[in-house]
Amino acid sequence: MARRLDIHEREFEAHFRTLLSLKRESAPDVRDTVATILADVKANGDAALAAYTRRFDRFDVETNGLAITSAELDAAVEAVDADTLAALRVAASRIRAYHERQRPAGFSFTDEAGIHLGERWTAVDAAGLYVPGGLASYPSSVLMNAIPAAVAGVGRVVMVVPTPEGVTNPLVLAAAREAGVTEIYRVGGAQAVAALAFGTATIAPVDKIVGPGNAFVAEAKRQVFGTVGIDSIAGPSEILVVADNRNDPAWIAADLLSQAEHDTAAQSILITDDAAFADAVAAAVEAHLATLPRAAIARESWETNGAIITVESFDAALPLIDRIAAEHLELAIKGAEAFAARVRHAGAIFIGRLTPEAIGDYIAGPNHVLPTSRTARFSSGLSVYDFMKRTTFVQMNDEGLRAIGPSAVKLAEAEGLGAHALSVAIRLPEKQGG
Amino acid sequence: MARRLDIHEREFEAHFRTLLSLKRESAPDVRDTVATILADVKANGDAALAAYTRRFDRFDVETNGLAITSAELDAAVEAVDADTLAALRVAASRIRAYHERQRPAGFSFTDEAGIHLGERWTAVDAAGLYVPGGLASYPSSVLMNAIPAAVAGVGRVVMVVPTPEGVTNPLVLAAAREAGVTEIYRVGGAQAVAALAFGTATIAPVDKIVGPGNAFVAEAKRQVFGTVGIDSIAGPSEILVVADNRNDPAWIAADLLSQAEHDTAAQSILITDDAAFADAVAAAVEAHLATLPRAAIARESWETNGAIITVESFDAALPLIDRIAAEHLELAIKGAEAFAARVRHAGAIFIGRLTPEAIGDYIAGPNHVLPTSRTARFSSGLSVYDFMKRTTFVQMNDEGLRAIGPSAVKLAEAEGLGAHALSVAIRLPEKQGG
Repeated sequence: MARRLDIHEREFEAHFRTLLSLKRESAPDVRDTVATILADVKANGDAALAAYTRRFDRFDVETNGLAITSAELDAAVEAVDADTLAALRVAASRIRAYHERQRPAGFSFTDEAGIHLGERWTAVDAAGLYVPGGLASYPSSVLMNAIPAAVAGVGRVVMVVPTPEGVTNPLVLAAAREAGVTEIYRVGGAQAVAALAFGTATIAPVDKIVGPGNAFVAEAKRQVFGTVGIDSIAGPSEILVVADNRNDPAWIAADLLSQAEHDTAAQSILITDDAAFADAVAAAVEAHLATLPRAAIARESWETNGAIITVESFDAALPLIDRIAAEHLELAIKGAEAFAARVRHAGAIFIGRLTPEAIGDYIAGPNHVLPTSRTARFSSGLSVYDFMKRTTFVQMNDEGLRAIGPSAVKLAEAEGLGAHALSVAIRLPEKQGG
Repeated sequence: MARRLDIHEREFEAHFRTLLSLKRESAPDVRDTVATILADVKANGDAALAAYTRRFDRFDVETNGLAITSAELDAAVEAVDADTLAALRVAASRIRAYHERQRPAGFSFTDEAGIHLGERWTAVDAAGLYVPGGLASYPSSVLMNAIPAAVAGVGRVVMVVPTPEGVTNPLVLAAAREAGVTEIYRVGGAQAVAALAFGTATIAPVDKIVGPGNAFVAEAKRQVFGTVGIDSIAGPSEILVVADNRNDPAWIAADLLSQAEHDTAAQSILITDDAAFADAVAAAVEAHLATLPRAAIARESWETNGAIITVESFDAALPLIDRIAAEHLELAIKGAEAFAARVRHAGAIFIGRLTPEAIGDYIAGPNHVLPTSRTARFSSGLSVYDFMKRTTFVQMNDEGLRAIGPSAVKLAEAEGLGAHALSVAIRLPEKQGG
């Protein structure tokens, strides 16, 4: 059973704080190991990649080739059954359509002094996408990470994926093709991140690295940040379901379990205004767990990190919702749409009884890479913006310089920056302020 | 003299690479010291702030008060001379007008299956602004960091500033008032960052911390990242001036020195198509250095990190410009506007002979907090977006669920995620795919 909290308990605030501060992740300290691998790849390039891949993935890239060829990609796509491939294409096309709406326009204007100002967005030259091998290898994740890059207009979208014993996941490769990935290499771990950041003879360096990975990959991303851009380091997944008693408890239980089954460190929370409904959901969770393939993981997550919170009204829940700042927020209540507009902090909101969170994981369109661990208070899901950057511009003329130049000189002098003042004053017609 | 490179030299590529990889910054390892300070403030709150402030700033906040009061702010504004205050207000109003154009609109739409999708932007609840004390205390920096937060709609804009021996900079306080800062505390260093991130009895925690600082402040921001958002850690300032021989060499020399005077680690580079003009600029730099107040710093920067690159044409310079990816790019050439449109990587572009970079430091309108050390390849200047975050949303109906639900079920099954599949299938009218 997940823990139960009631907003009317005397100790509620303390229990709620405990829930918020549950330390669900235990990251091993792999800093030094990762630093060594990065330095090795930086110095020795492809040879280092081959050595690490032999050691960690028991695979010889020197004889088999580091790159996955176009022919191998074709073969992988052939190996996927038609229905799954069709579903993948529906997903890719919906994700693309959504992300195309994100493409920023920039702006420019000329102010009353005749000064022309603005900003424009351009894509990064090359993006790297880390894809985990083995069990955590999700084709949906390839779509969600690569499509925004392609939509942004990134020229090179480079995927790295470990292939332990040479095994690849055909659906992951099919997803890479659908998503517009332009290069794929059979390498994983910190060594793959190093190759993307520093480049090797085979893998040209990229400017931005995204995608999920284990502790080594996360630490490698942290260490190369600055040389390249990175996405945020994702924590375990979370869902907050807000539901009234007019839902089928089995539906809500399935939603809670859809996060819980990801990882024992995942967190599922239900907020409801009806204690009897809470009981019914708890019972439905147990019933589902009897049949689900990943029941062991889901049960551990639910029992360790899960919670059911009862409130007297959803208005009273609103501050709790903002404090939780959930990665995924599902609103299965009356007036869900209006209520959603009042929520300030959440990565993604799933509105209404017919919008299970899983629809967003795969196919709705918005990105499923979302801020975890309460970081939705200050950060956002992955987007087209993450693969672009802004350049601002200013173009002055005589009139503009006369209008605002003297103020710039004044401020530069107040800050004691003589060359700043000089560079403006020297251009003023009457050398005012110079 | 700064180094000279010519694109026709045989060794040009090697010399250019050396220039790009100049390690201008030597950050001391302050990781452990900072970790200790953060833990202390987290555990002991205001008492720890008082102890560190006594030790590092020789100032007693327990008797003098941690907060700078509204009356003290009034007195500071009174102390600023009228002309400087007027210049500050021109700057604030122009910066505000520019940043108001950044306020993102978000979007929503209903697709052909009747599915409602979109995203909206909301401000963070509270932002913290670090302002260095002493020499590096720049009022322009207060405007550039605080105004975007205020424009974003951030409710609490909290400034921290060390006041060694109790000394404050009246112009910094006046800038805080103009910029819409809502709270100011006399505390600096890692301890101030800790207070902003974790909160104390006096200082409520914020969600995002921005602003420049020394190595301790930068490391503290790195360590609290995740608990709060942070801006990027700025490196030493840079300018790349691209100029033809129709400029007054003295103007261009002043522009190069306006970055060089910031810091001995700053970098100023000139690209020109005329070797004689290059000589004239180099001579003008020497002439200016004879009179400038910060000549010693500027000279060291120019001689250690500066460069003049001669090219046969500005078209040939374009790839170099993108590889340098300068924080500030000044285009003092014929056809500068059209040329600017071809540049892919730069933090900010100053177009034309009458647009010295310093005009952007103070008064033009765009932000002066810009990506340094070639990070303009993947990152952008500070903006309103940095104080906001996006929440995506989806609202399904029966028709939409029937249209795309089965594809979601298929993909969830292909990924082996049974509860994901169940949460969608259970809502499908005929339980397809369930």
